[in-house]
Amino acid sequence: MEKVKFSTLATNYKVVFLDSYGVLKNHAGLIDGVSETLEFLRGQGIVTKVLTNDASRSRQQQVDLFKRLGLNGLTVNDIITSGTLARLFLEDKKITGKIGYLGTVNAANYILHIDRDSVPISEIDLEDCDDISAFVFLDDEGFDWNVDINKTINLLRMKNIPVVVANSDKLYPVSPRDVAVGTGGIAKLVENILNRKFIHFGKPDSQMFMFAYNQILKEGDFSKHEILMVGDTLTTDILGGNKFGLDTALVLTGNTIESSVDTLVAATGILPDYICRSIMD
Amino acid sequence: MEKVKFSTLATNYKVVFLDSYGVLKNHAGLIDGVSETLEFLRGQGIVTKVLTNDASRSRQQQVDLFKRLGLNGLTVNDIITSGTLARLFLEDKKITGKIGYLGTVNAANYILHIDRDSVPISEIDLEDCDDISAFVFLDDEGFDWNVDINKTINLLRMKNIPVVVANSDKLYPVSPRDVAVGTGGIAKLVENILNRKFIHFGKPDSQMFMFAYNQILKEGDFSKHEILMVGDTLTTDILGGNKFGLDTALVLTGNTIESSVDTLVAATGILPDYICRSIMD
Amino acid sequence: MEKVKFSTLATNYKVVFLDSYGVLKNHAGLIDGVSETLEFLRGQGIVTKVLTNDASRSRQQQVDLFKRLGLNGLTVNDIITSGTLARLFLEDKKITGKIGYLGTVNAANYILHIDRDSVPISEIDLEDCDDISAFVFLDDEGFDWNVDINKTINLLRMKNIPVVVANSDKLYPVSPRDVAVGTGGIAKLVENILNRKFIHFGKPDSQMFMFAYNQILKEGDFSKHEILMVGDTLTTDILGGNKFGLDTALVLTGNTIESSVDTLVAATGILPDYICRSIMD
Amino acid sequence: MEKVKFSTLATNYKVVFLDSYGVLKNHAGLIDGVSETLEFLRGQGIVTKVLTNDASRSRQQQVDLFKRLGLNGLTVNDIITSGTLARLFLEDKKITGKIGYLGTVNAANYILHIDRDSVPISEIDLEDCDDISAFVFLDDEGFDWNVDINKTINLLRMKNIPVVVANSDKLYPVSPRDVAVGTGGIAKLVENILNRKFIHFGKPDSQMFMFAYNQILKEGDFSKHEILMVGDTLTTDILGGNKFGLDTALVLTGNTIESSVDTLVAATGILPDYICRSIMD
Repeated sequence: MEKVKFSTLATNYKVVFLDSYGVLKNHAGLIDGVSETLEFLRGQGIVTKVLTNDASRSRQQQVDLFKRLGLNGLTVNDIITSGTLARLFLEDKKITGKIGYLGTVNAANYILHIDRDSVPISEIDLEDCDDISAFVFLDDEGFDWNVDINKTINLLRMKNIPVVVANSDKLYPVSPRDVAVGTGGIAKLVENILNRKFIHFGKPDSQMFMFAYNQILKEGDFSKHEILMVGDTLTTDILGGNKFGLDTALVLTGNTIESSVDTLVAATGILPDYICRSIMD
Repeated sequence: MEKVKFSTLATNYKVVFLDSYGVLKNHAGLIDGVSETLEFLRGQGIVTKVLTNDASRSRQQQVDLFKRLGLNGLTVNDIITSGTLARLFLEDKKITGKIGYLGTVNAANYILHIDRDSVPISEIDLEDCDDISAFVFLDDEGFDWNVDINKTINLLRMKNIPVVVANSDKLYPVSPRDVAVGTGGIAKLVENILNRKFIHFGKPDSQMFMFAYNQILKEGDFSKHEILMVGDTLTTDILGGNKFGLDTALVLTGNTIESSVDTLVAATGILPDYICRSIMD
Repeated sequence: MEKVKFSTLATNYKVVFLDSYGVLKNHAGLIDGVSETLEFLRGQGIVTKVLTNDASRSRQQQVDLFKRLGLNGLTVNDIITSGTLARLFLEDKKITGKIGYLGTVNAANYILHIDRDSVPISEIDLEDCDDISAFVFLDDEGFDWNVDINKTINLLRMKNIPVVVANSDKLYPVSPRDVAVGTGGIAKLVENILNRKFIHFGKPDSQMFMFAYNQILKEGDFSKHEILMVGDTLTTDILGGNKFGLDTALVLTGNTIESSVDTLVAATGILPDYICRSIMD
Repeated sequence: MEKVKFSTLATNYKVVFLDSYGVLKNHAGLIDGVSETLEFLRGQGIVTKVLTNDASRSRQQQVDLFKRLGLNGLTVNDIITSGTLARLFLEDKKITGKIGYLGTVNAANYILHIDRDSVPISEIDLEDCDDISAFVFLDDEGFDWNVDINKTINLLRMKNIPVVVANSDKLYPVSPRDVAVGTGGIAKLVENILNRKFIHFGKPDSQMFMFAYNQILKEGDFSKHEILMVGDTLTTDILGGNKFGLDTALVLTGNTIESSVDTLVAATGILPDYICRSIMD
């Protein structure tokens, strides 16, 4: 596919949705020029929102982290995370009792801070767990994989409770060379062992896009045709954006690299409307 | 799980979403007492919407069919079908050129009537198909499976175009004893052969629920807590309703029968909030 | 990967196992030069066996077909088919009663001719099928897909009997441009709908290789190191040969073409020991 | 299904193949009466072999462990393990260079002791790993899951080498209440992340049964009809035995319990020829 210039493309839209990792930042920090690009978009009157599969931090912590990396001007309402959706689900379903989780205490505070107790899998007593009424896969850190994944499996064999996956990414990059298993990958292992399907949140699911769309409707009157979804991953950003009815642009600064983009598009059948080298192009 | 009386349960809500097949009707026609139950709900001021995985008829044709079966009082705005969502997708993505399809001419007229040509797979010339710009799985009828499923596979091997599945149900009941492969089952065969993933519409996907929710917001001010989703199938009605944040009630007049309900809930991990024998109970 | 000359490679072995379709023949008939190549191998004292995923013909019919195409010198003992294994299974398990099937009458005569009745799905009465004690997926031809696939699903929903897939290939080439859904693809659709796993025969399963190996042990004393498996398909010929402990050579006259061989090897992780342009090379 | 007495059933056969865990022993040690049952079988002149999915110990270590548990009379030739097959594969394929592995040093010594180096994933330098020419999933113990699973994924992303799973069991029981993720479960996670398929050894694959069958052919002249396969797991022991053409008996002293056996047989479609309460019955 032909590449188009992002700066020219973006000005055809009133709203731009941006993935975070691989578009705005990478393992080394903010990608060069991102600050200027976002300022350019704002200068053109274009509304921007960040849509990220992440449940390790609150939206405020995301804003603070972007600031530390040198990207100012984002507010809590500009960042939509899969963790936010998981939290809303737990609120909507009015789950009472304790919520078990796999992940860090920080993530638990953010997702589960509502007026109820949360308890890490390491502290759950399998002999006395009647009060656990839901379970959440929050993060790939904060626990001992050897012990706590098995303990999670045994808890969920005993108790048929709602199970939520707050970030469905199976893997994520940690360096130019290496990846790591993500929350979604661990959840998939457990689903596979138990032969059950959990409730997953995050792109490509429509709910992330719906939440972001509802957010911008509070700020103005926009149709879907006026929104461009920008991401580095075909199976999450582009598939999800396409399905929600948005125009989509794939950038080559993250998971998808220039030499394999045509092969990947052909193999998956997921077609971005546009391909741009980066949002700085 | 304990059974609750539907008539008592429903009056706790302002809105009731109902699946069609297995809840309102079955292979023999309207289920006895459905007309009276819907009148009772309306008498209580409860808004009702029908959410159905179907792309074989227009919403008006659905209204007419319910009338012929003896259920009056439904309007086009009361029926949300997966076909409607597929049609909106094709409009939103502004696809130009012809749209190929597998299904009946009636379904094609309904989904694809917009100002463009549609062409059944049987009439596509694989030697000259540059003008086909999207493909839709509409229905399990209206074509020769032996010939046209293979032809669809060969078309999609040659052309990397958006492919839409307008009804993701893998099978559907045709008598008390028998089922038939649905549109989603045929699409799954083709995805499996091609190792690709198409764009599926229908429950349990959030978009059906979002579309229905947006529809009722035009008619009044409702929160998700005031809506009950009622269905006979765990993997579509209940999973989808749960994930969207609605309370859910499983009825035992269709796919799920009383003797196996506990086993199925345990095996799938999909938990309805309530179980009712039927909506007449 | 580097290409090696087949004629040089083969002379390092005492036995050569050959896939049929894509190695010896294609949609147009015998591949040019195959007759001379097999004669050359025999002249070198190399034992050859054909291993093919096929259940549509008896081994004698395979020999006759090769003769009509111009390839002489093959005997019944030189051809190992997945259908042979399915037949042995039904004999070994001493199944009594009638065997239902999906496929042609010719295939049924061949696979099921043993002293018992076989009955095509079209002639099974679902109201009176107590005497059906096993079911076999034989071929993708000889039945009405629209009607008979659904009927098969309903039979297998009612009766929990052994189900055998006599050819596990999901698709096969019918012209340079086109493929068709194979027996294994139809069986996979039914497994997917029923959420069950049938008993599949054919490469890459070890049984095909074990059967061929036992056959050559009757003809001489050979170790696995003296056998080369030659095929055009990574997921059947090469994966199966590798796992059985044979050296493997991929040829580029069938399913795998030169321009994509490196990508496919990397994507699947299935590594042939050698790659040859063809067995005529 | 009706239960039959094992002692009566077994005397109809000349050979009995027995699964280990859930048939002969469990988390607490040898199952009561096993010693006497095996002596009874030997007294009847029945040949017995143990077929176990295990790659953590050598066959001699298995014999020693059974002795310590109180079961005498087994020799190295009486125990067939999936690890044995993995080892033979590595020998047959004449892999040169170092073999990386995930598992304990003991397992590595057993599987990989042949005249070559083996190296645990923790000691592999990803910057300098040109000499790693194959990788083996040996065991679920002996490594740090948080670190070493990710390192394995990154190694296998870089290097397209043969990958062997020496025990394909996804989970195994560790107490009457609890299970643990097995070697096959960890391998499945990595396959899922990388979208590749490794070479798996162990039941239900035909190779285990072929190896055991070849072993007894060295000890006498037996046909498949004279062999009974006994196991506690439908998806490994029974499916594999069935497919290899053996009669199969399911016992209820392990993974499959009496209250769910009919449901499981119906759900999987895997049909044992016989069901026995235990081999002591």
